[in-house]
Amino acid sequence: MSHDSAQVDPTSKSEQTKKRLREGAMASFSELGFHGTSTRHIATAAGMSSAAVYVHYKSKEELLYRISKFGHEAILAVVREGAASSDDPAQQLRAYAFALAKYHAQEHVSARVVNYELGALEPDHHAEIIALRKELDNVIDAILQRGLDRGVFHTAKPRMAAVAIVGSCIDIARWYRDGGSWTPDDVGEFYADSALRIAGATP
Amino acid sequence: MSHDSAQVDPTSKSEQTKKRLREGAMASFSELGFHGTSTRHIATAAGMSSAAVYVHYKSKEELLYRISKFGHEAILAVVREGAASSDDPAQQLRAYAFALAKYHAQEHVSARVVNYELGALEPDHHAEIIALRKELDNVIDAILQRGLDRGVFHTAKPRMAAVAIVGSCIDIARWYRDGGSWTPDDVGEFYADSALRIAGATP
Repeated sequence: MSHDSAQVDPTSKSEQTKKRLREGAMASFSELGFHGTSTRHIATAAGMSSAAVYVHYKSKEELLYRISKFGHEAILAVVREGAASSDDPAQQLRAYAFALAKYHAQEHVSARVVNYELGALEPDHHAEIIALRKELDNVIDAILQRGLDRGVFHTAKPRMAAVAIVGSCIDIARWYRDGGSWTPDDVGEFYADSALRIAGATP
Repeated sequence: MSHDSAQVDPTSKSEQTKKRLREGAMASFSELGFHGTSTRHIATAAGMSSAAVYVHYKSKEELLYRISKFGHEAILAVVREGAASSDDPAQQLRAYAFALAKYHAQEHVSARVVNYELGALEPDHHAEIIALRKELDNVIDAILQRGLDRGVFHTAKPRMAAVAIVGSCIDIARWYRDGGSWTPDDVGEFYADSALRIAGATP
């Protein structure tokens, strides 16, 4: 390294490289699955050498962990923002489902990795991601409970309703493709309505 | 081969071996993904040699194709049986969703392969499986349309309702695990009710 390299912000450059690697890994994991992806696939997708991958991430699993953590934190942020947009449980549920559905349409490539490759995480990383998913569940469970308490929702099995609502939104990542006739907003609107119907909201 | 081997029905023995290979492949694909599964994984899971795999299936892709075809035909059979159980669109939709949801809970291992590994099929096989999925769609679309015509369902977007109903059932394969507190019948009942709610059935 020459003395000149000190003029470049190393953190920023390193972060950009890491971002490229995460994006390369995300594309490969989404297409080939975690177990079907080699370091070479990730390096090729990021336009780097295989050796460069290990400079920044100690393993393929660490990349999956970082992608999963980033993805779950992003999802949690959008649904929390949705839930915080109103005091009314019906409006909150609508906003929660709209945000969750729109995210899974818009970010369908990363969302497939985030939802379908969890089993490949090492135990401590897996536990950390499961804790983030539990927070996601806690938000919808609280909304459903408040709606039931106020008599605006009607369901005998609120936990199963939450699983069905969240699951239908997650499933969007499986089938959604860019350039179709339904925009992420169209999908968000429809799934928001469906969430209210599943919860038995009084129209 | 000795002359004695003629006493054993060769078709039956070959079919049993093929079944073991399909089950081994299904377990491996479900755990490691299609691209993460080697012939050796399949052979080990089936308790055979790698060479034995190629005696019965010309490629890993042919195994995926056979598993996908069998799985889709089985799903189509249960939902058609459900739909044929009544003339009433609401009862038909309930039976369709019950059968689809229960199947994805009960057969969650094979259903993950059948739904999440489609992209790995060769073009002609992929087209054949997509045609089976289209038939599955046609059944629910016809039910929804008849319910709309009779005024018992209320939705402005029946195609999206079908996607949401079918998708929520498919998603069960992602999260369902044996031995939990919800039986496949519990799940079937709840998702059948949810399907009616999504379709806007008059209670």
